[in-house]
Amino acid sequence: MNVPFDREALAGIARELDVDVRRASIRDMDRLVNAVEERLGVRYIRMEFGIPGLPTPEVAIEAETRALRERKLGHIYAPFAGVPALKQEISRFARLFMGVDIPADCCIPTVGAMQGCFASIALASRMRDDARTVLFLEPGFPVNKRQVKLLGIESDSIDFYDHRGPALIEAIERRAQQGDLCAIIWSSPNNPCWIVLNEEELAGIGRICDEHGLLAIEDLAYFGMDTRQNYFVPGEPPYQPTVLRHTRRGISIISSSKIFSYAGQRIAMAILSPELWDTDAPDLEGYCGTEKIGRAFVPGLLYPLTACCPESPQYGLMAILQAANSGDRSLFEPAFEYSRRAREMKRLFLENGFRLVYDNDLGEPLADGFYFTIAHPAYDDGADLIAELLHYGISAITLETTGSVRREGLRACVSLTGQELFPLLEERLRRFAAAHS
Amino acid sequence: MNVPFDREALAGIARELDVDVRRASIRDMDRLVNAVEERLGVRYIRMEFGIPGLPTPEVAIEAETRALRERKLGHIYAPFAGVPALKQEISRFARLFMGVDIPADCCIPTVGAMQGCFASIALASRMRDDARTVLFLEPGFPVNKRQVKLLGIESDSIDFYDHRGPALIEAIERRAQQGDLCAIIWSSPNNPCWIVLNEEELAGIGRICDEHGLLAIEDLAYFGMDTRQNYFVPGEPPYQPTVLRHTRRGISIISSSKIFSYAGQRIAMAILSPELWDTDAPDLEGYCGTEKIGRAFVPGLLYPLTACCPESPQYGLMAILQAANSGDRSLFEPAFEYSRRAREMKRLFLENGFRLVYDNDLGEPLADGFYFTIAHPAYDDGADLIAELLHYGISAITLETTGSVRREGLRACVSLTGQELFPLLEERLRRFAAAHS
Repeated sequence: MNVPFDREALAGIARELDVDVRRASIRDMDRLVNAVEERLGVRYIRMEFGIPGLPTPEVAIEAETRALRERKLGHIYAPFAGVPALKQEISRFARLFMGVDIPADCCIPTVGAMQGCFASIALASRMRDDARTVLFLEPGFPVNKRQVKLLGIESDSIDFYDHRGPALIEAIERRAQQGDLCAIIWSSPNNPCWIVLNEEELAGIGRICDEHGLLAIEDLAYFGMDTRQNYFVPGEPPYQPTVLRHTRRGISIISSSKIFSYAGQRIAMAILSPELWDTDAPDLEGYCGTEKIGRAFVPGLLYPLTACCPESPQYGLMAILQAANSGDRSLFEPAFEYSRRAREMKRLFLENGFRLVYDNDLGEPLADGFYFTIAHPAYDDGADLIAELLHYGISAITLETTGSVRREGLRACVSLTGQELFPLLEERLRRFAAAHS
Repeated sequence: MNVPFDREALAGIARELDVDVRRASIRDMDRLVNAVEERLGVRYIRMEFGIPGLPTPEVAIEAETRALRERKLGHIYAPFAGVPALKQEISRFARLFMGVDIPADCCIPTVGAMQGCFASIALASRMRDDARTVLFLEPGFPVNKRQVKLLGIESDSIDFYDHRGPALIEAIERRAQQGDLCAIIWSSPNNPCWIVLNEEELAGIGRICDEHGLLAIEDLAYFGMDTRQNYFVPGEPPYQPTVLRHTRRGISIISSSKIFSYAGQRIAMAILSPELWDTDAPDLEGYCGTEKIGRAFVPGLLYPLTACCPESPQYGLMAILQAANSGDRSLFEPAFEYSRRAREMKRLFLENGFRLVYDNDLGEPLADGFYFTIAHPAYDDGADLIAELLHYGISAITLETTGSVRREGLRACVSLTGQELFPLLEERLRRFAAAHS
């Protein structure tokens, strides 16, 4: 079926599913596009959902099945703080690829980065009863905001669009001086605008967290995916930039969903500043049974959430990290594949009348990676733009839902668009351009 | 090494680990006994921890490994509300073994019963801002109380020791009339005292929850393990007693850790009253994005906690349920094994001067199962009793830590004590009896 798709039919399906296209979350957009594809027999260029599009490394699947069969896992709870050998391997990974020395005790597997973020935000919000506002550096992962709402705490935001470098640090410092913050949380490489915080910015954030008693919660969901750099030679710089180098109050959450294509088994890493182990928070004891911030993380947070992490995925992640730590670069191949896709897809959008919203990284060109942000001169409002693009068989979400101050744009994810779909994307963008020139 | 073990050595290890034997949680007791076993080269009769002592059914391990290999799971997120075929099988299980008709949409896998309980308590506490007290029917699982603390809400309790039958319902109704409750939570068969709420009691609780707008949260961690009954003929009564038969506001949490010996991969079931789907709660929307209680459970609670359940364990649980639903009774064998152990172990304790604390079930003899409760006439305080028993190579936790009003007793778990250890248990109890007659 040629684009544009039938407008009546699309509107009818959206009505039936009770999806407001203009405000749709990732999940709602996903549900809508699934239904349209099925009912109309069409195929979308799907850019709404950050689903890894590459298979899980065989080494992980092999390790999981071997652990289930040979170690006879299953009936006994896994160690609550994680399988000790995995903790060691995470510690090695931190040293070899992030350039930080973190003891294995502070390297803790979680049930996906989602759990790591939830536990970190919950921890921060229980440190001081009079400081319960989380500062988001925006845009970011929409569900972190949902976590804050679920916890019944407050949030505020500062946008990267007009705050980078010294301006970012000044704005954060000014906000911290109000005294009600408990944490700063951000994603870098950034979902969705793909800027990468540099060492000076991380040092500034780290210093402010130390001085004001905040947690620095770093979402490294796209670890290593700034392909302008080569982060993948173990033990040699450059290292993945991390706030752990710059603060005594940091938690770095590393998803294995994207860089290792391992979303479905829900296994991630939380790496805590060792100094947190003996750092007191006055009100924490009543919530978590200890006033030491680091010590609260496992028994006070992760344990009451899910007891432990499922055990076989811990062996899967361990096998991946062992291979990567030993120099097997194939584990990081997804970074390069997504980078190739982003370069080409951005070109197609730009050639057909679109522009990037977040269009530079401290004056340098952006890296090519998992996401980019687009707008079109004919549309002031991203909600109108996505409503129109849906008729051209292209899905995405609005920047507004990611927390951005920019209302005109969309977040586009490259993960599900392999090279074989580029001709289709190009044809649809040309038709869109012809109709909106 | 003969009992009693060296008192100085034990005290030294407890001091070094900073464990107060008299107040030790399950995890702390576990840590202490591990250390004593290692340092002194001794072996305990370990009754502190409800670790399933039997292997995970082969059908589950086989299904997990097949799903990982053949379905190529791993890189894509599992469906957020659970794998559809698993949801169907849970619905069938509810019909065949609980005698309730629940649509698959209301049958939701969780990352262990721990997550199911946390999400249910969180949901209840977000329904009305002026009703944030959870009523615990005690004793119970200590970590549920920790979950309430983490959420920053209140709790109150009513003890089964002096409240069963009409007295229980009257006490709950009186408490509900204060207007600040959001949920009632209990475990049946009960951890630790192994009483089982009957249909009249469940009907009373269900009615109160409906009339006062509370959630009824039923922890069925020991599903089917009241071996006085035969619950295991699919589709034929008697059925596992459940509050779902008696309320429009129930959530039944069924662990697969104990009855299916499947703790390590963290996969449980939450079964919601279908009427919750369209039941409004005035303040829920701000926390969970919808005011419909049932609809909030997946997108508003489970999703921001861990995104989805790991996928391969969902196939493992599905295989177990398929077999059980088709009449394979071997899946329920752990109930009978734990029952045999409990019968024998209770006898050994009773013959050596101990008595049961919770010693009857509405005037009938207690079932034999995963836990029982003990006290000794020489000790008024369970903390003193456990401190002494530790020198005789027997570990347990105090009833006090389970929320019981009874201060004199201990909770004893049978799961790790196979028949081959009975002679050792008997010898140690005899020595204890000789020293404390």
